[in-house]
Amino acid sequence: MDFRSDNTSTCAPEIMAAVQAANAGIASAYGADELTQRLDAAFSALFECEVAVFLVTTGTAANSIALASAVPPWGGVICHEEAHIACDECGAPEFYSGGAKLLLVRGENAKVAPAAVADMLARHTRSPHAVKPAALSISQTTERGAVYTRDELAALGATARAADLAFHVDGARFANAVAALSASPAQLSWKAGVDLLSFGATKNGAMSAEAIVAFDPARAEEIVRRRKRGGHLLSKGRYAAAQMLAYLESGLWLRLAARANNLAQRLGDAARPFLSAPVESNQVFIKPGNEDLARLRAGGALFYDWGGEDTGEARLVVSWNQAEAEVDAMCALLNTLR
Amino acid sequence: MDFRSDNTSTCAPEIMAAVQAANAGIASAYGADELTQRLDAAFSALFECEVAVFLVTTGTAANSIALASAVPPWGGVICHEEAHIACDECGAPEFYSGGAKLLLVRGENAKVAPAAVADMLARHTRSPHAVKPAALSISQTTERGAVYTRDELAALGATARAADLAFHVDGARFANAVAALSASPAQLSWKAGVDLLSFGATKNGAMSAEAIVAFDPARAEEIVRRRKRGGHLLSKGRYAAAQMLAYLESGLWLRLAARANNLAQRLGDAARPFLSAPVESNQVFIKPGNEDLARLRAGGALFYDWGGEDTGEARLVVSWNQAEAEVDAMCALLNTLR
Amino acid sequence: MDFRSDNTSTCAPEIMAAVQAANAGIASAYGADELTQRLDAAFSALFECEVAVFLVTTGTAANSIALASAVPPWGGVICHEEAHIACDECGAPEFYSGGAKLLLVRGENAKVAPAAVADMLARHTRSPHAVKPAALSISQTTERGAVYTRDELAALGATARAADLAFHVDGARFANAVAALSASPAQLSWKAGVDLLSFGATKNGAMSAEAIVAFDPARAEEIVRRRKRGGHLLSKGRYAAAQMLAYLESGLWLRLAARANNLAQRLGDAARPFLSAPVESNQVFIKPGNEDLARLRAGGALFYDWGGEDTGEARLVVSWNQAEAEVDAMCALLNTLR
Amino acid sequence: MDFRSDNTSTCAPEIMAAVQAANAGIASAYGADELTQRLDAAFSALFECEVAVFLVTTGTAANSIALASAVPPWGGVICHEEAHIACDECGAPEFYSGGAKLLLVRGENAKVAPAAVADMLARHTRSPHAVKPAALSISQTTERGAVYTRDELAALGATARAADLAFHVDGARFANAVAALSASPAQLSWKAGVDLLSFGATKNGAMSAEAIVAFDPARAEEIVRRRKRGGHLLSKGRYAAAQMLAYLESGLWLRLAARANNLAQRLGDAARPFLSAPVESNQVFIKPGNEDLARLRAGGALFYDWGGEDTGEARLVVSWNQAEAEVDAMCALLNTLR
Repeated sequence: MDFRSDNTSTCAPEIMAAVQAANAGIASAYGADELTQRLDAAFSALFECEVAVFLVTTGTAANSIALASAVPPWGGVICHEEAHIACDECGAPEFYSGGAKLLLVRGENAKVAPAAVADMLARHTRSPHAVKPAALSISQTTERGAVYTRDELAALGATARAADLAFHVDGARFANAVAALSASPAQLSWKAGVDLLSFGATKNGAMSAEAIVAFDPARAEEIVRRRKRGGHLLSKGRYAAAQMLAYLESGLWLRLAARANNLAQRLGDAARPFLSAPVESNQVFIKPGNEDLARLRAGGALFYDWGGEDTGEARLVVSWNQAEAEVDAMCALLNTLR
Repeated sequence: MDFRSDNTSTCAPEIMAAVQAANAGIASAYGADELTQRLDAAFSALFECEVAVFLVTTGTAANSIALASAVPPWGGVICHEEAHIACDECGAPEFYSGGAKLLLVRGENAKVAPAAVADMLARHTRSPHAVKPAALSISQTTERGAVYTRDELAALGATARAADLAFHVDGARFANAVAALSASPAQLSWKAGVDLLSFGATKNGAMSAEAIVAFDPARAEEIVRRRKRGGHLLSKGRYAAAQMLAYLESGLWLRLAARANNLAQRLGDAARPFLSAPVESNQVFIKPGNEDLARLRAGGALFYDWGGEDTGEARLVVSWNQAEAEVDAMCALLNTLR
Repeated sequence: MDFRSDNTSTCAPEIMAAVQAANAGIASAYGADELTQRLDAAFSALFECEVAVFLVTTGTAANSIALASAVPPWGGVICHEEAHIACDECGAPEFYSGGAKLLLVRGENAKVAPAAVADMLARHTRSPHAVKPAALSISQTTERGAVYTRDELAALGATARAADLAFHVDGARFANAVAALSASPAQLSWKAGVDLLSFGATKNGAMSAEAIVAFDPARAEEIVRRRKRGGHLLSKGRYAAAQMLAYLESGLWLRLAARANNLAQRLGDAARPFLSAPVESNQVFIKPGNEDLARLRAGGALFYDWGGEDTGEARLVVSWNQAEAEVDAMCALLNTLR
Repeated sequence: MDFRSDNTSTCAPEIMAAVQAANAGIASAYGADELTQRLDAAFSALFECEVAVFLVTTGTAANSIALASAVPPWGGVICHEEAHIACDECGAPEFYSGGAKLLLVRGENAKVAPAAVADMLARHTRSPHAVKPAALSISQTTERGAVYTRDELAALGATARAADLAFHVDGARFANAVAALSASPAQLSWKAGVDLLSFGATKNGAMSAEAIVAFDPARAEEIVRRRKRGGHLLSKGRYAAAQMLAYLESGLWLRLAARANNLAQRLGDAARPFLSAPVESNQVFIKPGNEDLARLRAGGALFYDWGGEDTGEARLVVSWNQAEAEVDAMCALLNTLR
C-alpha cells in the first residue's frame, strides 16, 4: 500500500505507446519537429483561445521559467507559505528570476485568499525600498489537495489585475482540479484572469512532460530564451511532445485524474474522523496522531508525514494507476483506527 | 521637531574635518591609500582581534555583500520578518547572493529568538528540495529599537554554530547598541559567535561610510571580489576611510550614539503610556492611535507611521545631533496626550 | 541524405527497450529509484575510479551546472571562441554561474592550446579588477570534429592544475572521441587531469540523457543543489537512468560511435579536396564554396552552412543510425564536385 | 612625477566647498533632498533635452546599472575587447544584468567601428541558441585616450538603431571628450543616438560622484530599482549631489578637463617618437620599449605598464590638478630618450 507520491508511478500505456511511435524517422531538432509543432494548436483547442506552449521536463522548470517571464528581479511573487515554489524547489524561482522575492501569505488548506493578497500589497508600498509585487502564484490543486472554485479563481484574478500582478497557476495537478470541478480548462484559467499556467502531466501518467501555457503569446520570446538558457530546450523534442499529445488526446488526462480523485474520495470516507483537509482531489491529509500513523505503517502502509516530523499528520496520494485493491485495503486499515 | 530618521542629519564636524584633511596630495587608488590601509589595524584594535575590514557606502551594500560571502545561492538566511534586509533593501540580499532565500521568523521587538531559529531549521530538512539554511542575520539594534544582550547574542551564536550557520549582524546602529550595553565591541560580536558585522557609521554622524567587518579574514577574497563586482570599490578610497577613522578615533562613535540614546530615553519617559516597544537605543515607538498622532503632527512634529498606514503607531528617531530643545519640545507635546 | 545533425536521429532500440522495461512497478522519486542508484557504480567501473554522477536531460544543463559548481560568479572560464558553451547555449553558463565570464581563445580546429591558456591567464592578473580565471573548458570532440589526443589532454590538464583551474570537458560527443582514440575513458579524463565531464548520450542514440561526471565526489552537494534549483531533478528518474544504463551496457555507446565515425571517414575520403578540418570523429567539415554547396543541395543533400551564411563552408554530421546507403550516395555526390 | 592615474588626485576645491556647504540642516534621505532634486534640471539644461539622472559613487556601478536596464539576461553587449566594462569591472555588467554576455570586438585605439558591430551581429542570428545582441557600449574617451568624433558617433548610433541595440557610452572621461571636440554634450550624446550615458566626475575632480544619464526617462523605474538593489542609493544623498552640481556649475567640469587635455598634449609632443596612440584627451600612450621605460622610472616617473607586463608600453595619465612643473619635468625626461 504505497501512497507516498504520484511521482512513484509509471507512465500510462497510451503515453508510452506514443513515445515508441515517435521513435521513427528523422525529426528536426530543438522543437522544430512535427509533434512539437502541433502543441500550440492542441492546447489552443483545449483552452478555447490562442495560447503559446513550451514544454519542459519538470514542474520546477515550468514554474520558474513562467514566473521569471513575468516578474523583474526586484519583483515579488505573492504565494502561499506552503506553496511548492516556496518550499520544494530549492529556490528555483529566485534563481530564474534573478533574485525576486516570494511574499508568503497564510491561508486554510493552502489556499490564497484575495484579502491576504491585499494585505501583502499594502505592506509593499515603499518604493524603491520594498520589492514590487509583480505576480500572484497559486497551486491548483493546492498543496493540501484543495481546489479553487471558479468564483475563487475569478476573485483572485480580479485582485491580481487590479494590482497589475501577473497571475500564475502551478498546475502540477491541474488535471485533478479540472476533473473535480464542473468547469472547462478555459474557465479555470484565462477566463478567470490566469496569465500563465504550469500544466503538469508527469504526476498524472506521463514520463516527463510539463507545459508552460502562456495565454498571452507575446510572452513567447522571453520564455523561449529563458528555457534555452536554463538548459530546458530538448534537442530531441519529439519524445516529450509525443507524451503531451497522447496525454491530451481522447481525454486521457481527465480520465486518469478522475479515477485518482474518485479513489481518493474512497480513502477520504474511510479516514473521515482524521481528515485534516477536505478531500477534493487525489490527495488525502489525515491527522490521527503519531501512534495511529505508526499503526498504519505497521499495517503495511507507506506514506509521508506532513508538515515536519512527528506532527501526527500524514499525506496519502493516490496515483493515476493506484490499484483499487490497494485503496480498499488502505480503507480497511484506516477503519481499524476508529 | 523632525524625528523622521537619522539619515536626515548632517555629518559630524570631526568627520567633515577629516574628509577635508584627506584632500591633499596623491593617494593610491582603489583602497591602496594610506588611510584605507589603516582600517584593518584600527578595527582590529577596537575588536581586540584580527579582523578584515571592507568599506562600502551604504548599509544595504554592507549587508548584502557580507551575506553573499556566507551563503550559497541555494542557501537560506534566517532573519526577522521586519529585518531591514527583508523589508527595506529591494531584494539586495537575493541579488548579491544569486537568489538565496530569506527565511522569516517572528519575534517580539523585532528580535530573533533561538527557538525561532530552531523551528525554522526543523522545516528545512528536505534536501535538496528545500533551501539549506546557511546564515542567521539579526539587527543590533533591532528594527524596533531593541538591543540584544550579551546573553541573548551568545545563545544565538551557539544556535548558529550548532547548525553550521554563519552569524551576521546588521549593525547599522551598532554604536547605539554598544553605547546602551555595558559590553565591549568584542563581547557583542565575535565573542558571542558573530562572523560578520555590518558596522554602520552613516546614520550616526558620517557622510557615507559603512564597514563590513569579517572576524575570519579568510573571507577576504570573496568579499573583495563581490564588492568590486557590485561597483562598491571606491576609486578615491581615502575619503570614506577618513570618515571611518575619524568616527572611531577618540570614541566619537560612542559619544554620538550615547547622546542620541539618552535623548531617546527622555522621549520615552514622556511617551511612557503609549510606548509600543521598550526604549533601548535611539528609536522610540509609540502607539497612541491615529487621532493622537494627528495631534502630534498638528503640534509640529515630523515622524513616520510604522507598520503601514493608519496603524496608529509611529516611530521617533533621535539623530546624533538632535537639538535638546527639540527633544524637550516633543516631550511637552507628548505630555499633552496623556 | 540528411546530414544536418545527430540530434535529428531516433533513439537506439536497445535504449528504447530499456525505457519500456523501466515502466513497471513503483519507483522512488527524485533519483532514489533503483536504476538511478546504479549509475554511480556503473560510471565508476567505466572510469576505473570512484565518481559521482548526475543525470540531466540536455548538454546545456550538464555543461552549465558542472561549470557553475567549479567557478565563482567573479570567475572566468577559458574556452575556445567556437565552443558550444560560448556560442550555442544562450548564455547558460553565465546564468548558472551567477555571471561568470567566458574567456575566449582561438585555436585551429576549435582546439584550445596550452599556450593560449597561458596567454589568457597572463591577461588576468589585475585582481580584483579583472575576473579570476577559474576553469578551463574544452569540447571533446571539438566543434570542428577534432579529437584531443591523450598527450594534448595531459598538457592541458597540467596547465590547468598549475593555474588552479578546474578542468571541464564538454563531452556531448565523448563517445566519438573514445571510439576514435586507442585510449580508455579514464585516460581521456581524470588521468589527464579532468575534474568534470559532461558525458553525452542523446546525440549518440539516447532519447534525452546526459551525465555530469564528477571525478571528485566532494562536488556532489553543490551539483545536487544546482541541478534541483535549475529544475533538472527529474521526479520520475528511472527513465533517464534506464537510458544511460542501456547506453553503457555491453558497450553500446562505443559501438554506435565507432560506426558513425567510420561512416564519417568514408565521407571524408570522398570530400578530401574540400575538407576544412581533419575528419577525426562523426563530423565532416567541407569548404567547397557556395556554388558547390548549392550543387550538393540540388542533389538532395541536407546540411547546415558553417560559420555564418554564405561562407562557402558546411558541416556534415553522421548520426549513429545513418544509413550506409545514404552515406554512399553522399559520397557519390561529393565526387561529382571534383 | 606621478602619471599613474587620475584616480589618485584630490577633489577640486570648488567641489569640496560644495560638500561642506551641504553639511547644514535637515535633508530628506534617499535622494529626496533639495540638491538631488535639482539634478534632473541641471542635466536637462546641460544636454538640452529632458533627461533622468541617477547618482552613484563609482563608474562600475554607473555602467553596470545602465547596461542592466537595457539588456535582458539573455542579451549581449557589443563592446571593445579593451573596454573598461570588459576588463576592469570584475564582471559587474554580467552580475547586474543577470548574466548577459559581452561580445568583444577589436578596433584601433580601442574604438569600435560600425563594421565590427555589423560583423558581430551577423554571428548572432541563431535564436534562441545564441544570445541576442541588445546593446552597444563604447567608451568616450576610449581606453586608449582616443575620442570618437561626432560623425563616428552618429554612424555608431545609426548602426545601433538599425539593429535595435541600446547605445551606451561609458563616459568616465566624458568631460575630456567634450573638451577635446568642438561639440556640445547634446551632439555627443542623444543627437548621435546615445540612449544611456555614464557621466563621470570622480576622475576629473569630484570625490565620488558619477551619474547615469537616461535620455529616455521611461527607463527611470528600472534604474531606480536596480540602483537600490545594488546598494547604490545613498541615504544622505545631498553630498554626492552637491559634488555633481558644483562640477557642472560655471563650467568647472570642462575647465578641468581642458587643462588636463592641454597638458597631455604637451607630454604627447615630447613623446612623439614613441606614441602608440594619438593624444586626444588626458591620456598618453607610449611604447619606447622596456629599457626606456626603466630609464623613465629611474628618472623619477611613476606610471603603469600597459597591456600586460613587459610589453614595452606604458600609459601616462594627466590629472585635473597635475602640476605644470611636473609635466614639464616629464617632458624633459622624455626628451632624453630621443
